[in-house]
Amino acid sequence: MTITYTPIGRVRSPYDSPADVTHDEADETTGEIVLEDEYEAGLEGLEEFSHVVVFAHLDEIDEYRLTARPPHADDVEVGLFATRSPHRPNPLAQTTVELLERDGTTLHVRGLDLVDGTPVVDVKPYVGSIDDEDASFGWLEDL
Amino acid sequence: MTITYTPIGRVRSPYDSPADVTHDEADETTGEIVLEDEYEAGLEGLEEFSHVVVFAHLDEIDEYRLTARPPHADDVEVGLFATRSPHRPNPLAQTTVELLERDGTTLHVRGLDLVDGTPVVDVKPYVGSIDDEDASFGWLEDL
Repeated sequence: MTITYTPIGRVRSPYDSPADVTHDEADETTGEIVLEDEYEAGLEGLEEFSHVVVFAHLDEIDEYRLTARPPHADDVEVGLFATRSPHRPNPLAQTTVELLERDGTTLHVRGLDLVDGTPVVDVKPYVGSIDDEDASFGWLEDL
Repeated sequence: MTITYTPIGRVRSPYDSPADVTHDEADETTGEIVLEDEYEAGLEGLEEFSHVVVFAHLDEIDEYRLTARPPHADDVEVGLFATRSPHRPNPLAQTTVELLERDGTTLHVRGLDLVDGTPVVDVKPYVGSIDDEDASFGWLEDL
């Protein structure tokens, strides 16, 4: 079985390559999610949310690795699905960004960690999450 | 440009069709995410996280609708991207579930709102989120 998606838009960001993205900087990085014109009516009301979740296809990734060494954790090696490594069987990225403004089909956002030109698969409103007090975070807790 | 994904596994749940899923019940619904055997090493360490984010392809959806009327909000009509409606250009679902146990490539989870047999595109650890005190939730706040 094969799943086929068509990009609904593209990322515009100051990052030209994955090596340029540092997660410390990314929190303040602003950019745009630009959707195709045909989806304008589909964005109605999104501007009333403070945050949106962007699903993007990492089109520069052409292989996966079963284990990963997360950044800032050089002595940790874990399974790829216990990380957000881009080297996944299906290289889908999920990132929650702050929505600064919507201008037609352009979303001005802050907190972007995606490279310029990255195809966008979906955009959803951020609708809250579980209480992080109730969560545990595996190897991340040791950093 | 076309994006092609191959399922990494399937959902096992008590829901036979989308109409069976009610979000009130779903919080306690248990089921399994069963990945292909080749990915077992990729799951190493995931069991130390309390929650995982499941990305699934809603293979019964064959068209999108630019606007949506969310459940429990009959008089609200908003753009599809301001909702989590399944009727999206790329019918990708994202759901955060509690990880009860990992047994090889089987993840026993709670809080499942997906139909039995749904193809799984990706699994990521839940690594925390923004403080919901700092977020606003559009039409959801009026419910």
